[in-house]
Amino acid sequence: MKVSEIAALLQSTPMGDVAREIHGVAGLESAGTADVAFVENARALDPAKTSRAGCLLVPEGVVLPGKTTVAVRNPKLALICIAEALHPAAPPPPGIHPRAVVAPDSQLARDCSVGANAVIESGVSVGAGTRISPGVYLGAGVRVGARCVLYPNVTVYPGARIGDRVILHAGAVIGSDGFGYVFAEGRQVKFPQLGKIVIEDDVEIGSNTTLDRGSLGTTVIGQGTKIDNLVQIAHNVKIGRHCIIVSQTGISGGAEIGDYVVMAGQVGVGEHAHIQDRVIVGGQAGVLPGKIVRSGSVVWGTPCRPMSEFKKTTARLARLDALAKKVQELAARLAELSS
Amino acid sequence: MKVSEIAALLQSTPMGDVAREIHGVAGLESAGTADVAFVENARALDPAKTSRAGCLLVPEGVVLPGKTTVAVRNPKLALICIAEALHPAAPPPPGIHPRAVVAPDSQLARDCSVGANAVIESGVSVGAGTRISPGVYLGAGVRVGARCVLYPNVTVYPGARIGDRVILHAGAVIGSDGFGYVFAEGRQVKFPQLGKIVIEDDVEIGSNTTLDRGSLGTTVIGQGTKIDNLVQIAHNVKIGRHCIIVSQTGISGGAEIGDYVVMAGQVGVGEHAHIQDRVIVGGQAGVLPGKIVRSGSVVWGTPCRPMSEFKKTTARLARLDALAKKVQELAARLAELSS
Amino acid sequence: MKVSEIAALLQSTPMGDVAREIHGVAGLESAGTADVAFVENARALDPAKTSRAGCLLVPEGVVLPGKTTVAVRNPKLALICIAEALHPAAPPPPGIHPRAVVAPDSQLARDCSVGANAVIESGVSVGAGTRISPGVYLGAGVRVGARCVLYPNVTVYPGARIGDRVILHAGAVIGSDGFGYVFAEGRQVKFPQLGKIVIEDDVEIGSNTTLDRGSLGTTVIGQGTKIDNLVQIAHNVKIGRHCIIVSQTGISGGAEIGDYVVMAGQVGVGEHAHIQDRVIVGGQAGVLPGKIVRSGSVVWGTPCRPMSEFKKTTARLARLDALAKKVQELAARLAELSS
Repeated sequence: MKVSEIAALLQSTPMGDVAREIHGVAGLESAGTADVAFVENARALDPAKTSRAGCLLVPEGVVLPGKTTVAVRNPKLALICIAEALHPAAPPPPGIHPRAVVAPDSQLARDCSVGANAVIESGVSVGAGTRISPGVYLGAGVRVGARCVLYPNVTVYPGARIGDRVILHAGAVIGSDGFGYVFAEGRQVKFPQLGKIVIEDDVEIGSNTTLDRGSLGTTVIGQGTKIDNLVQIAHNVKIGRHCIIVSQTGISGGAEIGDYVVMAGQVGVGEHAHIQDRVIVGGQAGVLPGKIVRSGSVVWGTPCRPMSEFKKTTARLARLDALAKKVQELAARLAELSS
Repeated sequence: MKVSEIAALLQSTPMGDVAREIHGVAGLESAGTADVAFVENARALDPAKTSRAGCLLVPEGVVLPGKTTVAVRNPKLALICIAEALHPAAPPPPGIHPRAVVAPDSQLARDCSVGANAVIESGVSVGAGTRISPGVYLGAGVRVGARCVLYPNVTVYPGARIGDRVILHAGAVIGSDGFGYVFAEGRQVKFPQLGKIVIEDDVEIGSNTTLDRGSLGTTVIGQGTKIDNLVQIAHNVKIGRHCIIVSQTGISGGAEIGDYVVMAGQVGVGEHAHIQDRVIVGGQAGVLPGKIVRSGSVVWGTPCRPMSEFKKTTARLARLDALAKKVQELAARLAELSS
Repeated sequence: MKVSEIAALLQSTPMGDVAREIHGVAGLESAGTADVAFVENARALDPAKTSRAGCLLVPEGVVLPGKTTVAVRNPKLALICIAEALHPAAPPPPGIHPRAVVAPDSQLARDCSVGANAVIESGVSVGAGTRISPGVYLGAGVRVGARCVLYPNVTVYPGARIGDRVILHAGAVIGSDGFGYVFAEGRQVKFPQLGKIVIEDDVEIGSNTTLDRGSLGTTVIGQGTKIDNLVQIAHNVKIGRHCIIVSQTGISGGAEIGDYVVMAGQVGVGEHAHIQDRVIVGGQAGVLPGKIVRSGSVVWGTPCRPMSEFKKTTARLARLDALAKKVQELAARLAELSS
């Protein structure tokens, strides 16, 4: 792909050696002369100047003398576009591997791909262009939409509903039993886990992440939400659309998460908490059971509180020793004054 | 199942339309006229009044005019009973799937079920009525009791002992090497992990949870204990009976947990800590190595302390800024007074 | 193995019944007369005196009258040596199981072992003496070195590079997509995850641990580093040599970890943090994004700070209530004095 073609694809005008051939995308540091890299913002200008990249995607208005550049509104987004052109995903091996185990009454779209040792139980349907990798298990009655990718060793429990263009990474478990018991006569009696799970379109689920289905209700992962590795989503949780949930976060039963919520890593959300739209939760924060976190707020700490307050408290904590000493001094001076 | 039959099963007297046919269990909000739902307590009375459920299991003494009800001592427990009658677990596919790989010297009870691509190594025994799902691996010499369910892609390392009626969810790993090294000559030398793991009767283990076997001793999960998804149990840990261990909790090597202990999500327990019977540990709490948490106490925070103390400290923290200002004021007034 | 042979192997002189036959290694409490156990330090002397172990490895200078002992500089290390002699690892089943699925163009060393239902894609190479267990998936172009052990149901994404003597426990996922998106036009657009992952020699990775490959760069796990179960390593992370990373720790994208670093359980490390050589991070600590933790420091808490400071603050916190009361008293006395 020539620099001129890259610029054309991005509807921009290139500067520099527009005939240069570009074969790949790379980071600023590791890029070679046949790579395109991107300059995210002003902070990246210095590494950009020393980068050997054959082409740089830069923010509009940025001029880098001696470099071949294409100026765009959002260089990172532009790189995604170019990466898709330069590195199209390899098409999956077509058809059903002879070593897959597929129930005769399942309905597989003609052009989907099923890998070796995948097991597809009775009543499953799989949409067009979907890739089922080796070792994947789809329980009875599961429905998977079109153009999904299920990586190896994913387990989907019976009855789960998965939308279109969903990506499930290796070892993810979808629709396992929720964790509910009633304590009676000295033992834990298992509460029925008869509910459903729905994963809407364009969701991505990380490796070894676990999502329980509803107990009586339904667990829902909303459209476009992205969930990282090793995350736990409990029964009856509802997550809205286009959320970002970072690794090792755990969301307890019945919690509701709005749209465009961002949770950093290792966050814990208590039962029936309600996190409204566009909330940002800092890493390792703990949201108490039943807590309502209002739209647009930014919270941190356990129990979580507004970020600014948490930071102030943290700063105060660092000076707590000094405060205690000051109180001691005051007490001494006061005693002196009194006597 | 008629309402009258439900009442008979619960040894109670129904009120309302006792001839009504009930086909399923559901939550109060989602229930339809052919569903039974339960009213846990007084707080659930309002949703109960507007529920369309065909039958409501209510606490004794509760009257809901116009509703068909069955009054019982513990409505949630009653629902479990009715759910088992209405939704009996589907019997597993009988026999050994032709695509399972089973060592000739393994001993499988005649009525157990072994799924496609399951691998059963030499010397394994599996009890009556146990279901081994597709992709499960049972290492050499593993013993699994009767009426267990092992969901897909579970791995059991050689020599593990698993009791009766145990449930292992998808991707769980039982008996992997403990994490022990001796630092010598500039590198980490692996300590032998030659011990055992015993999972007693009626235990349930969540999806992708990992349990290491003992290094020289034995890891034990006591009877009736329930462990959620993504929990880590290290080598030589002893857990008592009927405990509840919520998702993403980690228990370090050699820790001992008593009976009826409840740990909320994301708790961390240090090496050789000792948590006695009936302790409750709050979410994200950290129990220091070697710490003894006394029977019946309720603890929270890192390092964990009694819940009431933790809450008081948290409340104080929120007012720390005000305290610092007050000290400043006092200092100013005192200076004024001195001069 | 006679006690005299054990002593000879350890280049030491035995005391007591040197002709005694020893068949296994065990802990002090559980050891029988045919077991060897070790006495780590002075604290273990009391259990050593009552141990029934047939032979005790003791620190140099320790005399236990009536016991058969072998004195060595490092008894724990000596036990590792003896355990390897008494319990050599069982050799893997030789050859390729007929139920493995192996691409014809893969290059498997003649003496490696491939289990049932393992799937090895095109262009993979596997070194001498390496064991690929049942249900393992090796994506296209993966390279695995010599004398590695991959336990069941491990997934290795295409292109990963794995050194010699690496151990991957069950369910581990190597090289999955990093978690990177650009928010544009109301949705999360996936950033390309085209980078590499390199796992150097002598690394051990725990069960269900997940390691993402680089986005544009490379994720590196340095030689001899040991990673416990359920750990998350994000894209572009560089971990040095001989580190210890305990269970449920999560390391965010682009973080750099030096050599000989120890992280306790459930630690969280923010994006692009830099943890230098020989740092020790306490359990559940949180290292903020971009934070530099200097060589050799010991840190704890969220946000992490020097251990001594964290402990002082924690102690102060426990007395915060008393401090607040004292301030109130001072205010009252001051008011009295003023009037």
